[in-house]
Amino acid sequence: MTSRHRVVIVGGGFGGLAAAKALRRAPVDVTMVDRQSHHLFQPLLYQVATGVLSQGNVAPPLRDVLRHQGNAEVVLAEVDGVDLERCVVRCRLLDRTWEVPYDSLIMAAGSAQSYFGHDEFAVHAPGMKTIDDALEVRGRLFGAFELAELEDDAGRRTAWTTFVVVGAGPTGVEMAGQIAELSRYSLRSNFRRIDTAAARIVLVDAAPRILSSFDERLARRAAEKLERMGVEIRTGTLVTGMDAASVELKTTSGVVRLAAMTKIWSAGVQASPLGTELAAQAGVESSRSGRVPVEADCTLPGRPEVFVVGDLMALDSLPGLAEVAIQSGRHAAAEIRRRLDGDTRPRPFRYRDLGSLAAVSRFYAVGERRGARIWGFAGWLVWLFVHLTFLTGFKNRISALFHWMISFFGRSRPERTITARQVFARQALQGGRVRG
Amino acid sequence: MTSRHRVVIVGGGFGGLAAAKALRRAPVDVTMVDRQSHHLFQPLLYQVATGVLSQGNVAPPLRDVLRHQGNAEVVLAEVDGVDLERCVVRCRLLDRTWEVPYDSLIMAAGSAQSYFGHDEFAVHAPGMKTIDDALEVRGRLFGAFELAELEDDAGRRTAWTTFVVVGAGPTGVEMAGQIAELSRYSLRSNFRRIDTAAARIVLVDAAPRILSSFDERLARRAAEKLERMGVEIRTGTLVTGMDAASVELKTTSGVVRLAAMTKIWSAGVQASPLGTELAAQAGVESSRSGRVPVEADCTLPGRPEVFVVGDLMALDSLPGLAEVAIQSGRHAAAEIRRRLDGDTRPRPFRYRDLGSLAAVSRFYAVGERRGARIWGFAGWLVWLFVHLTFLTGFKNRISALFHWMISFFGRSRPERTITARQVFARQALQGGRVRG
Repeated sequence: MTSRHRVVIVGGGFGGLAAAKALRRAPVDVTMVDRQSHHLFQPLLYQVATGVLSQGNVAPPLRDVLRHQGNAEVVLAEVDGVDLERCVVRCRLLDRTWEVPYDSLIMAAGSAQSYFGHDEFAVHAPGMKTIDDALEVRGRLFGAFELAELEDDAGRRTAWTTFVVVGAGPTGVEMAGQIAELSRYSLRSNFRRIDTAAARIVLVDAAPRILSSFDERLARRAAEKLERMGVEIRTGTLVTGMDAASVELKTTSGVVRLAAMTKIWSAGVQASPLGTELAAQAGVESSRSGRVPVEADCTLPGRPEVFVVGDLMALDSLPGLAEVAIQSGRHAAAEIRRRLDGDTRPRPFRYRDLGSLAAVSRFYAVGERRGARIWGFAGWLVWLFVHLTFLTGFKNRISALFHWMISFFGRSRPERTITARQVFARQALQGGRVRG
Repeated sequence: MTSRHRVVIVGGGFGGLAAAKALRRAPVDVTMVDRQSHHLFQPLLYQVATGVLSQGNVAPPLRDVLRHQGNAEVVLAEVDGVDLERCVVRCRLLDRTWEVPYDSLIMAAGSAQSYFGHDEFAVHAPGMKTIDDALEVRGRLFGAFELAELEDDAGRRTAWTTFVVVGAGPTGVEMAGQIAELSRYSLRSNFRRIDTAAARIVLVDAAPRILSSFDERLARRAAEKLERMGVEIRTGTLVTGMDAASVELKTTSGVVRLAAMTKIWSAGVQASPLGTELAAQAGVESSRSGRVPVEADCTLPGRPEVFVVGDLMALDSLPGLAEVAIQSGRHAAAEIRRRLDGDTRPRPFRYRDLGSLAAVSRFYAVGERRGARIWGFAGWLVWLFVHLTFLTGFKNRISALFHWMISFFGRSRPERTITARQVFARQALQGGRVRG
């Protein structure tokens, strides 16, 4: 066994992977633990759900990404918890449990979908956080059109072609835009009985406007673009109920129930439960969304050997963006390297805002960076450039570019495959029926 | 409603799709019924299972393939049976049932995996006939290496890295070759504790040699190539038992039990049960593999309006090849067109043998056509050309070519993504455990 400094990284998302890569040349042994075997480029997950990209494009295996990094190993396991006193991470896989000791720990466990106390919605409105989610949504989206085509009852047919996207952040906006593209263009020539272009797409948010983290003028442009594409925007609207065939919406003027078989949830996130456990051990209080308050250098209060980064970290109200995770992950790695070099003064993490982008439709995106705004085709070119740059792996970049050419110029969808198992499992689940 | 001649096609595989396309300009209404929404390019399914291709590459939606064919519509439904007297196809989807009337019927329902009376093997050894199968096998293959990496017990680790492929036809040979490539090259740099190159790959067949439908000299070359890649060939061997962690093999010299967590079944096919039902109605006897005996023109005896094509058809001992399905599907369409033109003399179906190919590894394939043989790199070039030509859709061809460049030159696998749900579902299913 080695006596080198052991760095354990919990989570192979943006934060964890950035930290691992930044330790490439450090005299440490890196162990990355994740319950999935792949990294996930979450900002493009909605394109897997809508048939643009394949799973492989956005989810390269962690051990393949790190294959040339000799000081790093990848462990597939669920992390049950951390023992801060004994400096071990408790791992579990199936009926086996074991402990992984660390000298430095980087907690990058991220966040999961939050249904704001309505976990019963999950079965009716899958989220957009994992590959399984994306394949589930893909099955429901394309399956809905298949079943609408067979439906004789007008009311039920309308329910099959009504799509409700809950949450109008970037993911919700991008999803609504993609469903509009699909129904207005890509699928139109495919069906004989229904006019897919008549599909109703409803984008719901409790906030008074969409893209509430963006500049108001940009959000307005995005809203206008969506409305021109036929998306119905319902802001100031709460989702108060849901079943297999409908959704209940509440505004100040009352409650309505909308017949809609397909619901997609992109409304909120909750930090991994590991955060709350960690905060309790450290004697600090986690935030309402489960984030862990950290010192200015991203360490857990009183535990300088434990870093908390990305969505799990509560610091300066930084948002849950990939870029925050990447930069804080790199910061943790840099701190570890500096300490090993003998410099033990903590350095504060400074987030460098690289801005935000949201792709409303093909050839139309909105973006902002430090007060500068961009939109339309120019914004879309920036979106394309940024996503090609950040996508993991050269081959995935080329492949994604090719899929985008097919989707954006040809308006078709190269990855539409759904299986009967998916469509029918969903039906069985919802107890749905096509016709009496 | 129209009063045009109604052609119903049951099954959107090679036979059904070829028939539908051949009716493009005919004065008929075509209804294609399939329980999956996609066509499947089955000969490349093993590449989806081994991470080379994505689902979308080999399984384009049927309604997208036929989108510009105005006289064709696609119906997603399970076919429960056919009423030859009333000329209707009985369809079912979830709890709805309905009938589709036909003037001409083309039965192209194909075949499914056969376990030769051992259906209990299916849970332990998935077949290679559907997208769901391929994703299941992908999860098991890559999951096995993940779990081997975590295993401390040498015996169980060996069981995780032992792969048994049952059936040494083209699919079995190609699958065994791909697993060898994966373990010897693609995955080797990915793991730290196990040497993936030490994986044991066993190719089992009851026949005295592999590729029994091929020329014996070609089969010998393929066997030598496989053995050089480290594949263990066990011909003259029957699989007599199977459980989650092992397989029982029987030869003339006795019975051995091999510890192997991953088994893949590519041993046999059985025609769709619709064939037996159809034969019974027509008063003929279906073959042992469930195929329906037909007249020389591919029609059901006594039912000139019903064509049986592809794997469902028993005619002149024609093999279950894509090419037989395509040509018989086209023949049925041509017969229908000729009759509508007033020419009612039946014409016999003549199969034009285009030969067979099997890709043993990258840059090495064997092939034969009317007595001519080809092998090695030259064979592989022919394989590449033929598969690029026959793959459905121009975009799928370009995309597959790109995936092949990554896989064959870079030796990496662009579509390796598996999810925890897949790996753990399998474990739960098998009651497997990683460590005591």
